[in-house]
Amino acid sequence: MQLQQLFSPSVQHTLDVIGIFVFAISGALLAVRKNFDVFGIGVMAEVTALGGGIFRDVIIGAVPPAAFTDLGYFITPLIAALVVFFLHPHVERIQSAVLVFDAAGLGLFAVSGTTKAYSYGLNLTASAALGLATAVGGGVLRDVLANEVPSLLRWDRDLYAVPAIVGATTVVLCIRYDALNPFTSGLAVVTAFVLRLLAMRYHWRAPRAWNRRSTVREE
Amino acid sequence: MQLQQLFSPSVQHTLDVIGIFVFAISGALLAVRKNFDVFGIGVMAEVTALGGGIFRDVIIGAVPPAAFTDLGYFITPLIAALVVFFLHPHVERIQSAVLVFDAAGLGLFAVSGTTKAYSYGLNLTASAALGLATAVGGGVLRDVLANEVPSLLRWDRDLYAVPAIVGATTVVLCIRYDALNPFTSGLAVVTAFVLRLLAMRYHWRAPRAWNRRSTVREE
Amino acid sequence: MQLQQLFSPSVQHTLDVIGIFVFAISGALLAVRKNFDVFGIGVMAEVTALGGGIFRDVIIGAVPPAAFTDLGYFITPLIAALVVFFLHPHVERIQSAVLVFDAAGLGLFAVSGTTKAYSYGLNLTASAALGLATAVGGGVLRDVLANEVPSLLRWDRDLYAVPAIVGATTVVLCIRYDALNPFTSGLAVVTAFVLRLLAMRYHWRAPRAWNRRSTVREE
Repeated sequence: MQLQQLFSPSVQHTLDVIGIFVFAISGALLAVRKNFDVFGIGVMAEVTALGGGIFRDVIIGAVPPAAFTDLGYFITPLIAALVVFFLHPHVERIQSAVLVFDAAGLGLFAVSGTTKAYSYGLNLTASAALGLATAVGGGVLRDVLANEVPSLLRWDRDLYAVPAIVGATTVVLCIRYDALNPFTSGLAVVTAFVLRLLAMRYHWRAPRAWNRRSTVREE
Repeated sequence: MQLQQLFSPSVQHTLDVIGIFVFAISGALLAVRKNFDVFGIGVMAEVTALGGGIFRDVIIGAVPPAAFTDLGYFITPLIAALVVFFLHPHVERIQSAVLVFDAAGLGLFAVSGTTKAYSYGLNLTASAALGLATAVGGGVLRDVLANEVPSLLRWDRDLYAVPAIVGATTVVLCIRYDALNPFTSGLAVVTAFVLRLLAMRYHWRAPRAWNRRSTVREE
Repeated sequence: MQLQQLFSPSVQHTLDVIGIFVFAISGALLAVRKNFDVFGIGVMAEVTALGGGIFRDVIIGAVPPAAFTDLGYFITPLIAALVVFFLHPHVERIQSAVLVFDAAGLGLFAVSGTTKAYSYGLNLTASAALGLATAVGGGVLRDVLANEVPSLLRWDRDLYAVPAIVGATTVVLCIRYDALNPFTSGLAVVTAFVLRLLAMRYHWRAPRAWNRRSTVREE
């Protein structure tokens, strides 16, 4: 339990709200591109921002999920949806800034998701897996609702899962060696964040299956 | 807890079964249009009718969900699937009647979902949100399984979320001012129902994001 | 509770791991066909193999789900993903062998899912329904993530739901008549398995809605 107090509660809450806001922006922007109406924009903002955390809380049995008990968590995506609704050409123009914030959200959610899962009694591997799911789950739901192949799974997108995996793994290693504290947690967030920025800057991509073409060559 | 007894249990149960039946019809009809086989029709009927309620129950921790403990809730969609399987040209022909019942289901589920969420300790805002999710969740799952963009999110469909939001909001306002009783509950259902009928009659639609075209004009 | 000990724990665990492995192979193969990268292959393997069981455990309140507490369940899909990543042309070539194993997984999951649901207090009908969901849920999630119409629902695929339904129904009939033991359980698995093999061999398909063409003829 003490684990959850990595940062002071108010700092943790502020970080969560920032992560929720930027994820909501990405959901709302996709909704605009898909020509959804204002309610569609709101739903996409909520689902993208809160989907990963709701999945984590249902899995660990922390019901009702934080998204339904903390009014701030619920209202924040609606504000993001309104911002995009009225200002989306400007938000599009600062798309690269949005991606930087999204990278920060990815790191924050991977680390806080892993920590919360462990504090509910999951083993280290499962905690890291659930931290990853917290970080990427909302984006997968967003793409499924938009009827697109999840960006997470596509080979032609810059690495997204790896930074989250590194962040979550750093946390479980710190727990394993009894070294988890606000400093090492912050370091895990920053590592994931910087890795994601580098992946975008240098278009790092993951390999597809070996010998894909050989399926053609072989009869 | 007393809140759940807005109507006598048997009246409540009858209303629920009617809502489940009409939602199941909409799922089964889409399955026929997508050329699914008889099992696909049954699965689509079950998911559309029970998906929203199962989501609500998992979120509030009411497991196993009512859909798995009440045999009537489980059997009703199968009957709807059989009706559509054998009679679907006739069901299609009375499509407008189906839509009227679907509007009734929307109102019923929004109100009963909000009430149940509140009785499990959620705050007023979260209760209304979960009532909305109960009412529209099954339809979203239906469209995702059919590999279509959820009708709920599309701008070119008549208002669907707004009537449910109004119904759910009416309920939480009644709770807030200690005025929830069978009469005001019924009024909330009827309000949502009539709003949805008017939205269909006059093709009310929600606006899309402002300045959508400006993204083209701006370089 | 005793119900869960149909087989000795180690036998049960081995059967589960085999089922998980073959389902993971099917998810990973679809990921390769959709051109996903190595992480996409891993995610698809995990979701396909564990999705049905996670859904079942969330519904019956067995959280955290077994998939998150048993390291073997989590690692197995990753091994399947690696096998497909490096050897997929060979795996494709033995596609028919994969389908035979998948049929075995279908029978195993339908029977073990039904048994576990019943041991958590669900009634017989709900237990069979949840057994079916355990067996086919992962495949549905796999197809949704790949942005395809779930193979389960399509009329142009060989029967898949029916063998699982027969297996699950056999189990609840055995429970009803107090005849569930390792032998009858095994018989239910084998029945589902053989039915699925026959469905593939003779391309058994389920009917679509009656009078589909009449919608055209009638004005």
